[in-house]
Amino acid sequence: MDITQYMEQVGRQARLASRAMARADSAQRNRALLLIADAIERDAAALRAANQLDLDAAAAAGLAPALLDRLTLSDKAIATMVEGLRQIVALPDPIGEISGLKFRPSGIQVGQMRVPLGVIGIIYEARPNVTVDAAGLCIKSGNATILRGGSEAIHCNRALAKLVMEGLQGAGLPADGVQVVDTTDRAAVGALITMPQYVDVIVPRGGKGLISRLMKEATVPMIKHLDGICHVYIDAMADMKKALDVAFNAKCQRYSPCNTMETLLVARAIAPRVLPELAKLYAAEKVELRCDPESYKILEGYPQLVRATEEDWATEYLAPILAVRVVEGIDEAMDHISTWSSKHTESIITEDYSDAMRFLREVDSASVMVNASTRFADGFEYGLGAEIGISNDKLHARGPVGLEGLTSMKYVVFGHGEVRK
Amino acid sequence: MDITQYMEQVGRQARLASRAMARADSAQRNRALLLIADAIERDAAALRAANQLDLDAAAAAGLAPALLDRLTLSDKAIATMVEGLRQIVALPDPIGEISGLKFRPSGIQVGQMRVPLGVIGIIYEARPNVTVDAAGLCIKSGNATILRGGSEAIHCNRALAKLVMEGLQGAGLPADGVQVVDTTDRAAVGALITMPQYVDVIVPRGGKGLISRLMKEATVPMIKHLDGICHVYIDAMADMKKALDVAFNAKCQRYSPCNTMETLLVARAIAPRVLPELAKLYAAEKVELRCDPESYKILEGYPQLVRATEEDWATEYLAPILAVRVVEGIDEAMDHISTWSSKHTESIITEDYSDAMRFLREVDSASVMVNASTRFADGFEYGLGAEIGISNDKLHARGPVGLEGLTSMKYVVFGHGEVRK
Repeated sequence: MDITQYMEQVGRQARLASRAMARADSAQRNRALLLIADAIERDAAALRAANQLDLDAAAAAGLAPALLDRLTLSDKAIATMVEGLRQIVALPDPIGEISGLKFRPSGIQVGQMRVPLGVIGIIYEARPNVTVDAAGLCIKSGNATILRGGSEAIHCNRALAKLVMEGLQGAGLPADGVQVVDTTDRAAVGALITMPQYVDVIVPRGGKGLISRLMKEATVPMIKHLDGICHVYIDAMADMKKALDVAFNAKCQRYSPCNTMETLLVARAIAPRVLPELAKLYAAEKVELRCDPESYKILEGYPQLVRATEEDWATEYLAPILAVRVVEGIDEAMDHISTWSSKHTESIITEDYSDAMRFLREVDSASVMVNASTRFADGFEYGLGAEIGISNDKLHARGPVGLEGLTSMKYVVFGHGEVRK
Repeated sequence: MDITQYMEQVGRQARLASRAMARADSAQRNRALLLIADAIERDAAALRAANQLDLDAAAAAGLAPALLDRLTLSDKAIATMVEGLRQIVALPDPIGEISGLKFRPSGIQVGQMRVPLGVIGIIYEARPNVTVDAAGLCIKSGNATILRGGSEAIHCNRALAKLVMEGLQGAGLPADGVQVVDTTDRAAVGALITMPQYVDVIVPRGGKGLISRLMKEATVPMIKHLDGICHVYIDAMADMKKALDVAFNAKCQRYSPCNTMETLLVARAIAPRVLPELAKLYAAEKVELRCDPESYKILEGYPQLVRATEEDWATEYLAPILAVRVVEGIDEAMDHISTWSSKHTESIITEDYSDAMRFLREVDSASVMVNASTRFADGFEYGLGAEIGISNDKLHARGPVGLEGLTSMKYVVFGHGEVRK
């Protein structure tokens, strides 16, 4: 069987299984999740052995240490996966809720019911924990899933797939409810993203390179996350302590997440006071500052001072580097954000009520904040309970995507024999 | 300027205007709508004259009478457009509403704010009224709009565009808030659907042919409506009067809408009683019945009786033709629907509580009904106040799409200097 036929079969099986997954009640879906958690605990040693095969092959192939690290299924990683599944069980069931049910003048009662999307395709890099996290969220939300993990994790993913299948069957659900694509052939990805007849949405989890590649070819809609060029704007009326706390935390709490600040905008009136104080904090963390002429002048003498070029406004550093620019005020700040932001997360630091309200209303990003660190922009901090990804799109799901992002609202009509006049 | 450059300019202007449209308050947007309504009333004679140029050209080109009819801007059509704009003014403003604002353990307050999508592209056939209806809904929802109407209506659309622009400017909004593409070159459509940097969503309004063509090329997301192969299933436990009323109304109230029933499924136990009664009603309307062997046998002697082929299950007739099939019960009915439905609207006629609940839950269509005519599936009957289109998609907007479908939810965070630990 060639790869096209194989993926066609996987797709057809997923579509078929999706009906049974959607029909299953809460108890049945939760039971499957608990059985999978138990099976992973029970077979931890075998999982580590499978993972060792992946690690040996990856080491022999000269995989970078950071990638080897993500590929490793440690005891702690296994415990976290198991705990994650049990936490998903504890979340409220998103499926079947009917909202807005109202009588209409015709006599019919109309509302909307939350239902599974159907079949979710997840494409991710060589991180075995994603296999279980993603399967868990899709089972909870009544969807069938096709998982395509990085080929370096194939042994581990196969072993996990077996346990997931066992859990599904133990709960009376179809084994095909979650399928792990069992080939390292890259053509499988191309097939997966062009089967709208079988796949309702693709959630790609990975770097910008992966997503850009998929965007060119996909005919299935994607819930996609590109990059996070996040801004903090310190307004003229900012509280100094809040400005220092937030601007330091937004950059330095962790460098690699997408919700880390990459550009700091400061109002002209407050820049000479706030920038030198901030620089002391950044200096302790060896943060390189890439400054526009005005902030450069204020910060002259800072150990890692660099002149910013236009490219800096468009760069997601994911590193101890920060672009800095002085602006006249909120309008120039919002113009800068409108031009350069990736529409992920922006925060204003101000005590001015009208500026706060304008910023919240007018900044067109997935998360817009007042006096809070951009680092809060994630599903857990927002109370979604779990996160399948973060969306840079405006349609369907925007910002952190929880279980609801894997569902759709259909109209339901309760009638009593009504006909249209 | 070639067509690519022209569309690039239209796109850039729309993106720029979208910021001012989004910032405008309710009163300003409503004022623009009222000014446009007044201007159309005032210039009705000039609009009819412009329309006459289109009609003369279309008649000379041999356009079909049905298309000429849709192209005609009668006094009544003008009055309806004006009335439509004033009704949109009366609808509640969807923009700026914040929902679910809750404190999180970290101290931040998180909610979601409804905001405009940005730039909406509308592609439609030669129906001048759509120009005004669509512009009205986009202005109300704070979006900038690019309208591409059928080339046969270009004179009329130009005249309408001038009045819309006048209304926008009169309310202090940018004239580019609504742009009518001023060329009959078809390449303009190709450009419009491949400018994701300028256009956030495309709403195509037109036949299946148009949509299928756009789907192949579009890189901008679409809120699209394909076809309506809608089913009514008469369950064994159906009330006879409701079954006759609904099955007759769903087919015969109007033949051309997408929510008209195209296939009737009848439970074996009730078929011999209900089908002959129904046939009497259909015979009076000269409805052709395309029957599976079992229903054919029951209906032998019906004047327009035809044997159904598999193609009939997949056909949207939009005509006095109905496919009929006898099924064992609800499971076989739902299997048929799952295989053949276009996922638009399906209705079950039953007094059985469990069958009703199963049908509502398990049928994967945009609208699922109990004891009601499929003809109710539209924005006005559902209470949306207005309808920009009907979506066959599961992501973002499903079923009838009102003003909310032209909006997006962004997260807003009210902080007090909180930082991530």
